[in-house]
Amino acid sequence: MKSSGQSISPQVVKRLPRYYRYLEDMLAEGLVRTSSKELSAKSGLTASQIRQDLNCFGGFGQQGYGYNIAQLHNEIGKILALDKKNKTILIGAGNLGRAVAAHMDFAKKGFVLIGIFDKNEAASGQLVNGIPIRHISGLDDFCLENKPVIAVLCVPKERARELTENLIRLGIKGFWNFTHFDIGNQFPQIAVENVHLSDSLMTLCYKLDRLGDKK
Amino acid sequence: MKSSGQSISPQVVKRLPRYYRYLEDMLAEGLVRTSSKELSAKSGLTASQIRQDLNCFGGFGQQGYGYNIAQLHNEIGKILALDKKNKTILIGAGNLGRAVAAHMDFAKKGFVLIGIFDKNEAASGQLVNGIPIRHISGLDDFCLENKPVIAVLCVPKERARELTENLIRLGIKGFWNFTHFDIGNQFPQIAVENVHLSDSLMTLCYKLDRLGDKK
Repeated sequence: MKSSGQSISPQVVKRLPRYYRYLEDMLAEGLVRTSSKELSAKSGLTASQIRQDLNCFGGFGQQGYGYNIAQLHNEIGKILALDKKNKTILIGAGNLGRAVAAHMDFAKKGFVLIGIFDKNEAASGQLVNGIPIRHISGLDDFCLENKPVIAVLCVPKERARELTENLIRLGIKGFWNFTHFDIGNQFPQIAVENVHLSDSLMTLCYKLDRLGDKK
Repeated sequence: MKSSGQSISPQVVKRLPRYYRYLEDMLAEGLVRTSSKELSAKSGLTASQIRQDLNCFGGFGQQGYGYNIAQLHNEIGKILALDKKNKTILIGAGNLGRAVAAHMDFAKKGFVLIGIFDKNEAASGQLVNGIPIRHISGLDDFCLENKPVIAVLCVPKERARELTENLIRLGIKGFWNFTHFDIGNQFPQIAVENVHLSDSLMTLCYKLDRLGDKK
């Protein structure tokens, strides 16, 4: 079995959450075993690609028997470190911030949301998923006291850079970044996932335009 | 100049929205010219990579003069087909759906949002960004009458497959998919952008866990 110390190629890592999601669904359906062929049908990846990906964690796959879903789900979860409880804060409780706070199952994904902050005085005290929105002025004290390691940024682009630098000073080690400010280039020692929804929308526009060429 | 008929490598296409976003910011700052070096600093891509990407649309770049921002922004916008006005509907007006409807600047990204649908009777008639939420029961008639080509899916996974198949029957050609159901494998003739926020969160968890190894 691959120990969590060893590192896996970024290409494989990128596919792990998908596998994990498929396996979670299969568990929910009460299934016990699956095959690279089944996973291929769900994912569109080739069966041999999938076998190759999963073999690099050691052999759960038995020729002709396929994979034990619960075991594979558990092992991929360990590799992704989803058993961790990384203390997380969310900044910017607008529509998007509230949607993210309310709908993401942080607990199942390795995070625990411990604070939500917004600069809007009027929002202070409102509950999102049972967590009160705090005024941004209390951010530094909260971080010094509670030591969150992850920040979810749902703020306007203009505020992103200064906020990011301050949060790094306050001990934040990773960002889930929904702003249009690209974190990462200037902070290589920090873990970042940028979610650029507008880039995705523009890509869709291009793909749609190109459909015509296929006809 | 590259005509919109010619196709560009997927790797380059993936970077175009980022370039477009940077150029938009520079225009907003009143800047006139930029260089591959400047774009490199913003994006973390190498200057030569950027020159290579931008050269495949023809030479706006003049040695020593760099790029005219407005022209490059305009050309990339054309290649992404952002000048289109693709009729778009959004299904699922929960927190996430409302956030997407309220915050995405569809008009600037090649889309015009013409309808929002939800199965919750109580939400019917509520305005999101000036657009009334309609009951899902009116979806088919609305599509037959207004002929939208894009659907934004913000519904629970369980409803995604049936809804997708129905929307394709109704003439939808592209999906911006926020559900955990992977569109695309089974519908190759349709343009799809899947936004899997939970995959992104799991990837962040992995990256954060691996930071320790770098120390």
